[in-house]
Amino acid sequence: MDENLMPALRRAGSLPDRVKIVEVGPRDGLQAEKAEVPTDIKVELVNRLSSSGLSNIETASFVSPKWVPQMADGRRVMADIDRREGVVYSALVPNLRGFESAMESEVDEVVIFGAASEAFSQRNINCSLAEAIDRFAVVAQAAKDAGMRLRGSISCCFGCPYQGAVPLESVLDVVRRFSDLGCDEIDLADTIGVGTAGQVARVVEAAAKRFPIGQLSGHFHDTYGQALANIFAAMQVGMNIFHSSVAGLGGCPYAKGATGNVATEDVLYLLNGLGVQSGVDIDVILNAGDFISRALGKPNGSRAGRALLARAA
Amino acid sequence: MDENLMPALRRAGSLPDRVKIVEVGPRDGLQAEKAEVPTDIKVELVNRLSSSGLSNIETASFVSPKWVPQMADGRRVMADIDRREGVVYSALVPNLRGFESAMESEVDEVVIFGAASEAFSQRNINCSLAEAIDRFAVVAQAAKDAGMRLRGSISCCFGCPYQGAVPLESVLDVVRRFSDLGCDEIDLADTIGVGTAGQVARVVEAAAKRFPIGQLSGHFHDTYGQALANIFAAMQVGMNIFHSSVAGLGGCPYAKGATGNVATEDVLYLLNGLGVQSGVDIDVILNAGDFISRALGKPNGSRAGRALLARAA
Repeated sequence: MDENLMPALRRAGSLPDRVKIVEVGPRDGLQAEKAEVPTDIKVELVNRLSSSGLSNIETASFVSPKWVPQMADGRRVMADIDRREGVVYSALVPNLRGFESAMESEVDEVVIFGAASEAFSQRNINCSLAEAIDRFAVVAQAAKDAGMRLRGSISCCFGCPYQGAVPLESVLDVVRRFSDLGCDEIDLADTIGVGTAGQVARVVEAAAKRFPIGQLSGHFHDTYGQALANIFAAMQVGMNIFHSSVAGLGGCPYAKGATGNVATEDVLYLLNGLGVQSGVDIDVILNAGDFISRALGKPNGSRAGRALLARAA
Repeated sequence: MDENLMPALRRAGSLPDRVKIVEVGPRDGLQAEKAEVPTDIKVELVNRLSSSGLSNIETASFVSPKWVPQMADGRRVMADIDRREGVVYSALVPNLRGFESAMESEVDEVVIFGAASEAFSQRNINCSLAEAIDRFAVVAQAAKDAGMRLRGSISCCFGCPYQGAVPLESVLDVVRRFSDLGCDEIDLADTIGVGTAGQVARVVEAAAKRFPIGQLSGHFHDTYGQALANIFAAMQVGMNIFHSSVAGLGGCPYAKGATGNVATEDVLYLLNGLGVQSGVDIDVILNAGDFISRALGKPNGSRAGRALLARAA
């Protein structure tokens, strides 16, 4: 942390010295794209990202291609990328069939997922959130047996498109269930971006009483512009793992035209300004963001990305 | 403040109970528009804003129309709006000629301005920042004699497009000069949006040792996506006046395609989430933002605005 950081912020609770960024653009980001993204573009994106110093990249999803056609080439992506020493490549795995694909693809980290919202769970997969997570037990066991890292991702921790407010107890219940399944890391996700800084600090602090703060991650969407304030608040209560998406890839299916994942460039700009280490080279990320935005033929969704690229031009 | 706000944030330094929003869209925002905006659109915008509960609207600029043609109709705007009791209507005033226009327009608050960056001052007005501010002494005196409120706006407090870093001492020197001129309120502006949360907290805290914190305001641009995190940090060190622009009106002349002023909707969403009172009705602001975005034929620049309008549609 920057030694010049003012005393008030030190009093405010110290910021972490170092933060781990989990880059989710290739999976969570591209999944939201309507047009098919060619496999070689995905591979090139992952390779550019892995050369930035990132230590964790969410790369594939082994859910049924019937449900998520954009991710149908996960095995090819995993096979074609240049695997970089020290980088954890993660994939979403809903069932044992998906787990086999993950194993054969030599995925480093298996991601299982559930919602903190009962209404979201019922509406999306037609079962209770407890049942939904129980279904992952076999996947979790298989991953542990294979010596793979296991991550549990909890959507709708800060609000739900169907039920609105989500009780803190529901979030904590899912944290406990994922903890019981042996997760190495648990994500608190603001799937629709509705959370604000005080609420985020409160939920993170409560979750940290059930699961080690150093293994809890924050997954924030910038739909309401709140993501960086939320990350700043979460850091003040000790969280030090955050998800982000290069060029802000990813939309929001619940609000047409709205923004999705917080942009990696914006997060890095904040961390660099605060003197919090991430080990990630923002210039490499800027170029990766420029590459994928051009490849998709869409504007760069990162504010810092647009400003820094314009300055460099 | 929300009584449920978690203990960690209370320990972190209490947030203010109430914040004053200074809406700068009609002036700082529209000034960046290339195409001429019809006077009746400006008037309609100001009227919509003044019905939201906002207590301060930057409405006009009486600088030479040779320099800022978009603001040439300031007298007509001031004459045509419905003046609402309790709302302070502000105008930029560079000289005594501008002051006469402000007087005749019954402006409530005169805004004088300077930069904390020597390079910015030299490049933009070809004199030192001390000389630039001295030139405002006659305007300040005239405003005080007329019993009008006086505000001093300091640009480039957190970085400069020409010199890069701006020494804290330069910021504090301009604060002192504006204080000596009798300013009732002084703005610390991040004109190019480069500041980050720790730096903002540090500068605000230092400035508050020279001028009452309750009369210092933060003017943040979202060029690098940092504005809300900066506001959140500034509130934690006691700042409680913030500038914002409906629909994020306003660009950044130093980075093409980049975002300008932080959007009023995004700020209100944050404040409402934190339980910090502003007295402003976000629904009225949402409609005003939708109105002006359509009138200008451009996308709404507020993330919260886009998401909330999409949800309501």
